[in-house]
Amino acid sequence: MTKPRESASAGKTAVIIGGGVIGGSWAALFLANGLKVIVSDPDPEIASKVATIIGSATPTLEGLGYDVSNLMANLSFQKDNTAAVAQADLVQECGPERLEFKQALWKLVEASAPAGALLCSSSSTIPASRQSVQMANPGRLVIGHPFNPPHLMPLVEVVPSPATDPALTQRTIDFYLSVGKVAREVRKEITGFVANRLQAAIFRESVYLVAQGVATLDELDDIMTNSLGIRWATCGPFLSFHLGGGRGGLRHFLEQFGPPVEAAWGILGEPHLDDATKAMLIEQVDGTYGKQSFDDLADARDAKEMAVINGVAAVDSNH
Amino acid sequence: MTKPRESASAGKTAVIIGGGVIGGSWAALFLANGLKVIVSDPDPEIASKVATIIGSATPTLEGLGYDVSNLMANLSFQKDNTAAVAQADLVQECGPERLEFKQALWKLVEASAPAGALLCSSSSTIPASRQSVQMANPGRLVIGHPFNPPHLMPLVEVVPSPATDPALTQRTIDFYLSVGKVAREVRKEITGFVANRLQAAIFRESVYLVAQGVATLDELDDIMTNSLGIRWATCGPFLSFHLGGGRGGLRHFLEQFGPPVEAAWGILGEPHLDDATKAMLIEQVDGTYGKQSFDDLADARDAKEMAVINGVAAVDSNH
Repeated sequence: MTKPRESASAGKTAVIIGGGVIGGSWAALFLANGLKVIVSDPDPEIASKVATIIGSATPTLEGLGYDVSNLMANLSFQKDNTAAVAQADLVQECGPERLEFKQALWKLVEASAPAGALLCSSSSTIPASRQSVQMANPGRLVIGHPFNPPHLMPLVEVVPSPATDPALTQRTIDFYLSVGKVAREVRKEITGFVANRLQAAIFRESVYLVAQGVATLDELDDIMTNSLGIRWATCGPFLSFHLGGGRGGLRHFLEQFGPPVEAAWGILGEPHLDDATKAMLIEQVDGTYGKQSFDDLADARDAKEMAVINGVAAVDSNH
Repeated sequence: MTKPRESASAGKTAVIIGGGVIGGSWAALFLANGLKVIVSDPDPEIASKVATIIGSATPTLEGLGYDVSNLMANLSFQKDNTAAVAQADLVQECGPERLEFKQALWKLVEASAPAGALLCSSSSTIPASRQSVQMANPGRLVIGHPFNPPHLMPLVEVVPSPATDPALTQRTIDFYLSVGKVAREVRKEITGFVANRLQAAIFRESVYLVAQGVATLDELDDIMTNSLGIRWATCGPFLSFHLGGGRGGLRHFLEQFGPPVEAAWGILGEPHLDDATKAMLIEQVDGTYGKQSFDDLADARDAKEMAVINGVAAVDSNH
């Protein structure tokens, strides 16, 4: 599990546009992998804000096996986007989710960044083909969407636009792999990409079941963490069914249970987030998690996520 | 994490009707908790089959902290259901998912079991109110639905029928808690209970995304295990959103993002498991997981699930 500071991308320069929660977390990860990081953000207090984010990410990075000594030595700031990206091997955009902002930004970045620099957006909602319309070469822009927080969660969804050269998509994936991420291509510019669509599917059925009084909000959370969550931290939905039905695997499962599986889809709920439903959920969350300290809950989540990541990785390294 | 053999239910007698994969796994768990276990099954080779299941469960139980010495000392067999249940503190039914079988069984069991015995069915598909129609007191039957395998996975969904006394539901929950499970009530007899409905919601969207070519089957699995799986092993969907949107919590999240959340539900896929889709999934699974040993994949899953359970529990015990 020890990840040496000297990743294959060590010494390269990452320019992060927007030093908020996501940008600061990317900065911490890149620094831990030995990159030089330049944060470009108009906020006059950006240096202290990013330092705070990196400070709170540091124990996690150490827990993941990174050398975190002198993490800030390779960090600098440059308010002028154009000047910042002139030195970039990678631009990781983490600005506001406003189409006009991103379209104007990429036109400027393309004109100033080295021709070989990777140009990536962290956006979860605006695909590359829409952000890149003012670029001379729109195919250069690729989505590199992290799962929050990027310094901890392994996944990066790499979503090229239809104009992107597959070789560039692969270079982008290779970069994220080099900084310890699990980068996977999303092969179409579909709304929500993959992870957020799966999350929406679970949230819809969860709201339905609580609205129907089948379980309370905290009971449903307990059901998830003590069953499917454990399974999906170790095997995705297809491998789970492949292994869950005996040695015939997914083939046998689909051949034998196709009709009942599709029938089960048909009875899933279609709730609405109307005022009564929202009020009910808020009342329940106030009555349970609302009584606990937000920081305690978040700290426990972070510690558990690290334990899960390290526990699964330790098994992988033995197999 | 050490779980002493002497649980609050140690010394009690559990009668397991049906010694298949689920029944054998329950047997291993109950034995590890110090119960006497009687397996009732007409199969002439049941003793060796159950011994094999318990043998393969033993390393996992040891990994979870149980004393597994002399695990078989309190195990016996009794083909005659009526004779077996006469001594029961708990009957855990794990027979075939056939309505007529279960209805006839419970009539017999009710007539022969002690009045205070808990009568529980492991069924995932037939609710208690349908199984119990021939019983004098139909409210006595409660579903105790484990997540497979019961000796490893914490969750038990406890589903009473509308006729069940809430005090009996609570006694049933308390029993499963006493053998180390996370027992949660499912408050309505809804098809699929909770966990399998959530699983169906994920599988539907997963099949849609693979059918649309957004990701391959194994890429989608990787996306899940490296993002949402880690999160849901540590926090359920509601707590995840409560902590994911800043200090305003779920209240702020719902108040600010209600309309886009509901809009995201509306674009989820509605795939069909037609022959072409099944053939595509089977081709992909054969091309990836099919090339690996089933036993190796299953062993890795079990080891990772144990690592996740122990890792999360260790954090819980420190908070």
